[in-house]
Amino acid sequence: MSIAWTSRYALRTKGIKSSAIRELLKLTQNPEVISFAGGLPASDLFPIERFKEACRRVLEQKAALALQYGETEGYTPLREMIARHISRYGIKAQTENILITSGSQQALDLIGKLLINAGDQVLVEAPTYLGALQAFNLYGAAYVSVTSDENGLCSDLLEPSLRSGPKFMYVLPNFQNPGGTTLSEERRRTLVMLANRYGIPIVEDDPYGQLRYEGEHLPPLVVLDRENVPRDGGYTLGNVIYLSTFSKTLAPGLRLGWVVAPPEVIAKLVQLKQGSDLHTSTFAQIVAYEVARDNFLDEHVKRLRVAYRERRDVMLDALAQHFPSEVIWTRPKGGLFLWVTLPNGMDANDLLREALKQNVAFVPGDSFFAPNGQDQEARRHFRMNFSYARPEEIREGIRRLSVAVKTKLPRSQAARPAP
Amino acid sequence: MSIAWTSRYALRTKGIKSSAIRELLKLTQNPEVISFAGGLPASDLFPIERFKEACRRVLEQKAALALQYGETEGYTPLREMIARHISRYGIKAQTENILITSGSQQALDLIGKLLINAGDQVLVEAPTYLGALQAFNLYGAAYVSVTSDENGLCSDLLEPSLRSGPKFMYVLPNFQNPGGTTLSEERRRTLVMLANRYGIPIVEDDPYGQLRYEGEHLPPLVVLDRENVPRDGGYTLGNVIYLSTFSKTLAPGLRLGWVVAPPEVIAKLVQLKQGSDLHTSTFAQIVAYEVARDNFLDEHVKRLRVAYRERRDVMLDALAQHFPSEVIWTRPKGGLFLWVTLPNGMDANDLLREALKQNVAFVPGDSFFAPNGQDQEARRHFRMNFSYARPEEIREGIRRLSVAVKTKLPRSQAARPAP
Repeated sequence: MSIAWTSRYALRTKGIKSSAIRELLKLTQNPEVISFAGGLPASDLFPIERFKEACRRVLEQKAALALQYGETEGYTPLREMIARHISRYGIKAQTENILITSGSQQALDLIGKLLINAGDQVLVEAPTYLGALQAFNLYGAAYVSVTSDENGLCSDLLEPSLRSGPKFMYVLPNFQNPGGTTLSEERRRTLVMLANRYGIPIVEDDPYGQLRYEGEHLPPLVVLDRENVPRDGGYTLGNVIYLSTFSKTLAPGLRLGWVVAPPEVIAKLVQLKQGSDLHTSTFAQIVAYEVARDNFLDEHVKRLRVAYRERRDVMLDALAQHFPSEVIWTRPKGGLFLWVTLPNGMDANDLLREALKQNVAFVPGDSFFAPNGQDQEARRHFRMNFSYARPEEIREGIRRLSVAVKTKLPRSQAARPAP
Repeated sequence: MSIAWTSRYALRTKGIKSSAIRELLKLTQNPEVISFAGGLPASDLFPIERFKEACRRVLEQKAALALQYGETEGYTPLREMIARHISRYGIKAQTENILITSGSQQALDLIGKLLINAGDQVLVEAPTYLGALQAFNLYGAAYVSVTSDENGLCSDLLEPSLRSGPKFMYVLPNFQNPGGTTLSEERRRTLVMLANRYGIPIVEDDPYGQLRYEGEHLPPLVVLDRENVPRDGGYTLGNVIYLSTFSKTLAPGLRLGWVVAPPEVIAKLVQLKQGSDLHTSTFAQIVAYEVARDNFLDEHVKRLRVAYRERRDVMLDALAQHFPSEVIWTRPKGGLFLWVTLPNGMDANDLLREALKQNVAFVPGDSFFAPNGQDQEARRHFRMNFSYARPEEIREGIRRLSVAVKTKLPRSQAARPAP
């Protein structure tokens, strides 16, 4: 008999649906569509000449290393470079604290594998990064959602949720995906204090931290945690697993991220990673190292900040110019996204269908809430990316989108009472 | 309080130990050691000039694509190339049947994620590839082991095990890792017939199939399965998930493998892969495509066959010259490995400690058996790789190893009765 595959799938795959982002990205391959949907960095800003030179040098000087199997932990000079780089933000890590992953997404998957038994609660922001939900769902995570506002996760609402005993908290403190919001320093301190009091670890996801367009860098949770709790050694990390990536600063096509954690956590993640993909591409790692070295990455990030600040401002200006006053949005200080809230009675999924007729796209908000999050509220939001499209495309895209918004705007909106 | 990380780990990580291969590879980083331990292709045969040219072309013509996020399924021209390539072996696949993975190891991980609930049985060969055991262990697999001999998995011993209802069978038909043995055509036909009769899928892992040094290519299980069971459409695949990789033919540092399966299985694996790492490095995929295209890969594989056949013959000759008659080994027709059996009373783990004193290394056999496999027997075996070391190193390594073997050989070996 021929196999009935579906009957053989593991229980954990039962609830898996294709993600909204993924299906959307397919629609937006039409070159007519201006897409604010993906979380893509600007293709026109990739440092191509530097990549050419790096590839040439790697293949002339280190080909046998770059094309061969490598260590699961990652390429040591790259890990050392990351350690030096993050030390300027106060993160005191040694090579043994750093694991290279196949993008940050793999770090989320490995953390799910390490920490989540089916039914375990994970504390997440509402809204939160949908890729984290996808990764954790596969391990049978349940969720407790805590509201996030313009100053990030509402740490004053945390304690009841912490008492319910989540396995860990997943937080994006800088220019959150999807909210574009930044966790205030006061709330950071409260969060770290509570993590310590309740013994609940924090997974701090920081893909955008370097892409700040105004204001001062705020201390990462992993640093505050270290200040908060006296440790024995100079380099001991404590209650926070910190994640970052080269996807937003260098190139996502390399699939390079990293985890910073206490050595015993790294050792366990290494074993899980070995079973998952042996190691991340040595070629991609060594090329990235050669591209980034000698402070090139810092200089490149400075250029990205200038370009993305402009794109953000163009989007904010165009929104102010074209959108009706009933629609509001966040004003991110960095990162790639802003978050739009529609008036009561409007539905972002409906709006997307209308927007696609106008050849413009975004991601509806409900993808960014855990299953027990705020579903009713969720459908009034959507996420907009401002890093990928060029400034003139952003202006035109927002104009098109405003046409869709006005088509869908409830007529009697102004007269409605607040919900 | 500071987190007690260990108490937070998921149940599935409890039994995870660092693999023998991984720890060994660390010991063998000493350049004095001649290592037959890893499964590494020859670094001196990487087509470096072709890689240089490919990188230059990719970055000149396709940089925006190669450095950007890509589709989870993989780079379409690469999937089309794979479809064309495997069609010559009779595997009729379309692009929709092919998923690019981050090495074959990720395919094993995704298959574990898709098919294994904790406690599910997986039918494996004894011995089998330890990386598959590592991947499946994480999902709580139990195992039923079936003996493999010089003609591969003993398909005449299969039925009692199939009646116990394994979730799938995991088989390496060509130049098996670690045995170096090849499944006979008759047994292939029996295996596929039984899979069909009992409705148990086969995962066919074929990393080495192209590296045949003598004899005729045998039909893959995925092809025999299709002959065996009439299907509706011309391209429908049935009961077999087929895996292969560029790691042994092009370069493992790229981390590029692929899965061939029915479209509904691919669709599910795509969703799991999306949560695991979004997609495999677009840069690595496009570079691999540019290296492999215009039949370069075929020509390169021909060169590898000549070089690896020589290395295999050098190892076989050296073993015959130096090893005592009480030790026996397989004579692989392809691939990267041969499998040594020590006389009763000897232990490969003991021998390894002695061998490392002589600066030569291998992998002891017990790593290659599922937990309920033949543990007593297992310690009499070890795996030897003949692709990585150069011919003169192979000769010297076998000489050194023979010294270790003779040191550990039981004095009264010849007089002992068979077990």
